[in-house]
Amino acid sequence: MNNNPVGIFDSGIGGLTVVKAVKRILPHEDIIYLGDTARLPYGTKSTDAIIQFSLEDTQFLVDRGVKYVVIACYSSASVALDIIKTTFSVPIIGVIRPGVRKALQMTKTGRIGVIGTSLTIYSGAYEKAFKEISAQSEILGKACPLFVPLVEEGWLDHMVTELVARDYLTPLKRDNVDTLLLGCTHYPLLMKVIRQIMGDINYVDASTEVGVELARSLRDLDLENHEGKGSTAIYLTDLSMNFKEIGERFLGEPMKNFSRVSLKGREGMK
Amino acid sequence: MNNNPVGIFDSGIGGLTVVKAVKRILPHEDIIYLGDTARLPYGTKSTDAIIQFSLEDTQFLVDRGVKYVVIACYSSASVALDIIKTTFSVPIIGVIRPGVRKALQMTKTGRIGVIGTSLTIYSGAYEKAFKEISAQSEILGKACPLFVPLVEEGWLDHMVTELVARDYLTPLKRDNVDTLLLGCTHYPLLMKVIRQIMGDINYVDASTEVGVELARSLRDLDLENHEGKGSTAIYLTDLSMNFKEIGERFLGEPMKNFSRVSLKGREGMK
Repeated sequence: MNNNPVGIFDSGIGGLTVVKAVKRILPHEDIIYLGDTARLPYGTKSTDAIIQFSLEDTQFLVDRGVKYVVIACYSSASVALDIIKTTFSVPIIGVIRPGVRKALQMTKTGRIGVIGTSLTIYSGAYEKAFKEISAQSEILGKACPLFVPLVEEGWLDHMVTELVARDYLTPLKRDNVDTLLLGCTHYPLLMKVIRQIMGDINYVDASTEVGVELARSLRDLDLENHEGKGSTAIYLTDLSMNFKEIGERFLGEPMKNFSRVSLKGREGMK
Repeated sequence: MNNNPVGIFDSGIGGLTVVKAVKRILPHEDIIYLGDTARLPYGTKSTDAIIQFSLEDTQFLVDRGVKYVVIACYSSASVALDIIKTTFSVPIIGVIRPGVRKALQMTKTGRIGVIGTSLTIYSGAYEKAFKEISAQSEILGKACPLFVPLVEEGWLDHMVTELVARDYLTPLKRDNVDTLLLGCTHYPLLMKVIRQIMGDINYVDASTEVGVELARSLRDLDLENHEGKGSTAIYLTDLSMNFKEIGERFLGEPMKNFSRVSLKGREGMK
């Protein structure tokens, strides 16, 4: 048993979907969330920059005594997980593998589609994770770079969103995937439109799966908190105009207890 | 006469459209361009963050001995121009006012539309600039947040882009604006679609106008370079996967002579 908080970081506030899942599955745990909103998004930056930012994000959480680090940012998990693991001694889990394991459990035909931002897809992180866990599956990746801006515009159910989704998803539909992995924090909000196009197949939302796997790992390592009342502290590196409105859309409840912070090495932002 | 370079900065590489215009109008000038690609975009960040970033960008150029600073970023020009002017003694021009002056020269009915990112439009910077220059005009602003992602996706002529443009621009069309100001570095690439919807009205591309106004100001201050061969040095705070391809789309020529730099106060990015 360990009463220290669980640390979760993302490039922005989309990772609050992971916080929501973890709170549901592990109601006693205290959570410290860091969103690097001053430098979001990570997906359009270089691998070097993402690694550097991710190390700073992890350091911030470690400095606050977290017992576990969850990488809720798909870009970070895609390119920085290994180096974070070798740099820090705290146990660490990324959003990529839990979704991969779940997709492999669900698929019957072994044909699995993965959608994400350009960086997540082109990094090859998903293909690598699938190959390491099972050689049997056939993975079809598809970058959907307009999905995040469409969610942030609030066009969840707009004709344009349906057209964009049709453009992106038709190749996956044609290839008869029986399982679709949503490889981005924003995509669960587009489920209605995605389901219209892809139909009645299996869907994997990695935000939920990372919560399930975190619970198992905390139990295995005897790090669970059985008594806490489960507080959530949210730290953001920038407070933009509409962060609260968008954040609450992801968190699914009012956003209290948040503050602006500056990361080490970023003396520019005081 | 002064042989020092002209400094131009933007949050990313879209500001290379301004470089292109300045090179055409002032072929003898040396140009130092800074794109803060590690922290782009600015438009989704807070006013405080944009001011801080813009001061650091200006400092970088001033440290390199520029004789003039051009703010090619509409978000910076919208919220940080005044504070940059009071902080530095070098002459400074932003992208907002030159376009406003041109639009006022072109309009016959006084009904002018302005399109830009959410921050540019909601900051009220354009309304303020129009009011200060002429009380006669009626300004209709419209935020078009999906235009930048569509340009970066390369969907310049896609049915989706036409539908999005129709959604955004129909209110301006209905209000019979006779002049449309493109208040974002990326929008000139969407001219074909925009013209399909708005028809044969006046269009103002502020990137060109800032070049015209810079030339006039250099002449007035006797800072022109009559003899230089006109070099361009490009500094970026991050080199992402496809920066060169997108950059050349804006610059209109091959991108040579670029390097990655770190800004003062950003020790995190070494």
